[in-house]
Amino acid sequence: MTVSIENIYEAQTILDGVIVSTPVIYDERLSKELGTTSFLKAECLQKSGSFKIRGAYNKIHRFSDDEMKRGVIAGSAGNHAQGVALAAALHNINATIVMPKHAPLTKVIATKNLGANVILHGETFDEAVAFSKQLCEEKGYIYVHAFDDDLIISGQGTIGLEIVRDIPDVSVIVVPIGGGGVISGTAIAAKSLNPKIRVIGVQAENCAPMKPSLEVGKPVDINFQATIADGIAVKSPGLKTLEIIGKYVDDIVTVSEEEIARGIFHCVQNSRLVVEGAGAAGLAALLAKKIDLEPEDTVCAVLCGGNIDANLLARILEQVLVRQGRYQILKLLVVDRPGMLAALLNHVAETGANVIEVFHRRAMWLAPLGRVGIEMLLEVRDDDHGIEVFNHLEEVGYHVEREGIGDWEE
Amino acid sequence: MTVSIENIYEAQTILDGVIVSTPVIYDERLSKELGTTSFLKAECLQKSGSFKIRGAYNKIHRFSDDEMKRGVIAGSAGNHAQGVALAAALHNINATIVMPKHAPLTKVIATKNLGANVILHGETFDEAVAFSKQLCEEKGYIYVHAFDDDLIISGQGTIGLEIVRDIPDVSVIVVPIGGGGVISGTAIAAKSLNPKIRVIGVQAENCAPMKPSLEVGKPVDINFQATIADGIAVKSPGLKTLEIIGKYVDDIVTVSEEEIARGIFHCVQNSRLVVEGAGAAGLAALLAKKIDLEPEDTVCAVLCGGNIDANLLARILEQVLVRQGRYQILKLLVVDRPGMLAALLNHVAETGANVIEVFHRRAMWLAPLGRVGIEMLLEVRDDDHGIEVFNHLEEVGYHVEREGIGDWEE
Repeated sequence: MTVSIENIYEAQTILDGVIVSTPVIYDERLSKELGTTSFLKAECLQKSGSFKIRGAYNKIHRFSDDEMKRGVIAGSAGNHAQGVALAAALHNINATIVMPKHAPLTKVIATKNLGANVILHGETFDEAVAFSKQLCEEKGYIYVHAFDDDLIISGQGTIGLEIVRDIPDVSVIVVPIGGGGVISGTAIAAKSLNPKIRVIGVQAENCAPMKPSLEVGKPVDINFQATIADGIAVKSPGLKTLEIIGKYVDDIVTVSEEEIARGIFHCVQNSRLVVEGAGAAGLAALLAKKIDLEPEDTVCAVLCGGNIDANLLARILEQVLVRQGRYQILKLLVVDRPGMLAALLNHVAETGANVIEVFHRRAMWLAPLGRVGIEMLLEVRDDDHGIEVFNHLEEVGYHVEREGIGDWEE
Repeated sequence: MTVSIENIYEAQTILDGVIVSTPVIYDERLSKELGTTSFLKAECLQKSGSFKIRGAYNKIHRFSDDEMKRGVIAGSAGNHAQGVALAAALHNINATIVMPKHAPLTKVIATKNLGANVILHGETFDEAVAFSKQLCEEKGYIYVHAFDDDLIISGQGTIGLEIVRDIPDVSVIVVPIGGGGVISGTAIAAKSLNPKIRVIGVQAENCAPMKPSLEVGKPVDINFQATIADGIAVKSPGLKTLEIIGKYVDDIVTVSEEEIARGIFHCVQNSRLVVEGAGAAGLAALLAKKIDLEPEDTVCAVLCGGNIDANLLARILEQVLVRQGRYQILKLLVVDRPGMLAALLNHVAETGANVIEVFHRRAMWLAPLGRVGIEMLLEVRDDDHGIEVFNHLEEVGYHVEREGIGDWEE
């Protein structure tokens, strides 16, 4: 093994005063749901919005003067870009980041704002990485790998030291896995301090190569689909991280897109924290009861990043609200006569439901002649209130259909 | 003056280990925009989701055994309800909270979950408070005022101690004002430690009685409108808080609904924190450049609460995105022939814009016979990208109208 707890302590000394020692926050609601004492490590409040600054700073800080002059390069569509850009800026050296052409504009802007030279190249993340390696050779930049590097792993491992320091009783640490850098460092730190701590990794169901790779003992390519946890959508683990995970990590579970969305929602509504899909994956696995726990366990889920577009966040919140029954779709027929829509809406108002959208359709659903189809999207207090609205409309004489909430899966 | 810094130190000792000493977070983006060093006091991460636990716990902790047996009552529609409920639960005493009938269900549930007996009574907040005072007399409960109470003010003042401890250079503290409890305590703490610190209060334009009350030297009733900063929508200041604010607070400014929404958006997108309208008001005043600052200032805005419904948060994020040009509405006419809508959408796809909604309308806008009106809601990267989409469609031969973004005000 090439990374030891001493390396992680070294990284901690280097990072002291540079990074935020992010708070661990007791989560009352999660504790009640799980029947255990439960904490969140709010790494989404880290500088650059994720843990990536820890490893990148630890790496760049060791450069010789000559290496500093050469500058760094990385290929990334996301958090690694911002972490490397910030670490380079803090050392006053040049950083070049290659991002795929269709990288989210907010991430491109954030990386530029940190002073990096951003090059948009390639259709996919892999093409961006390939081009960054080519530039590396041509220009003499130093390549900063996102995870498969001892100094990167030891930097991320400082998260483990902070968790054990702030929650001395911690018995289970849950960490999302992309390339495997954070979980590798965190597992080495935690298990070295207390071998009884269990470390559980979480991947998105849609991109989960770690377990099959461990089974065959080498990184395997897998079929993958897009995921809202784009920050951990890494198609193939690293060689170093795979070895460390095989040795130190107790179990790996996967979470669905819907479970990840629920994790994000939980953070916003109960913990007042904004996390991205990748950051919420560990919490999502806990909420979905995918990790075996005992009542005496003290659990900590690492919320490893918060770089989510406001637009995507708004959509996720709304989808979860629909699933929770806070939005209801009702369909019914009314007689095609002036005043009938107004009368219906008066009945809706009596229930306290809030009208979001109304469609008044003559040609749809093969409605009998002389009748009109009405489709309403209503905001209600909860599913019970939705049923109350439904019952009230039935009582006053409408025949109402409650529409299913659709299928999230493709 | 009845509250001194000694009272606030006493409160701090009592609250030690009970409340969260919430983090102050350096805000890079805000610092750049203002040209000053800028911090956020993330009180939205406090237990019960706002600062209210500080005062309520400080108050209840002083009760005699007999008083503890009697239990407490409060009238509240929001954060005070949860603060009192939690403080009572931590002392193992009964809490009764009267909330208006139409209080947001999430707040009712949160208060019940903290163990309080919740009574829904009255149409308005004032009716709920009146009923709580009536119950107080009938049942012998002890009334816990939301702000006009020395022990409440000293409890909230611990925020000021924490800010000066964590940011020794702080020169300007910006605090939202509802009843005036937090700003009173914070101002006493900060000015006692360093009389040069300026303390600025912020109210929502739609409910801003503090300045006129100071002018006449007593609480005045004002015309008010609903605001997304419902947590500071207090129609009339307290007598104690008015006196303290008159003595210690340097200035009071107001912010519009749109400015508050921008404050909430900033927290989500840049600071990964969820704040409610009231919590964002101070930051909103900074972002709107309503507070005079010098480059050498070190500013701290108190984000005093984070209890916002996910539903409202999603709507606010979307409205700000529309204002920022991330959503664009385009209207145009196409020939009413099969394939024309598909052709148009292909041209949209070429620009990388994402279609959110399409309306294909024959009867609208008095379209000439043989033509159909198309209305599209598109998601674009930014306003420039929106213009690019517009120009591309014009170039390929459509005559496009860009629709205005509407008027926020009623």
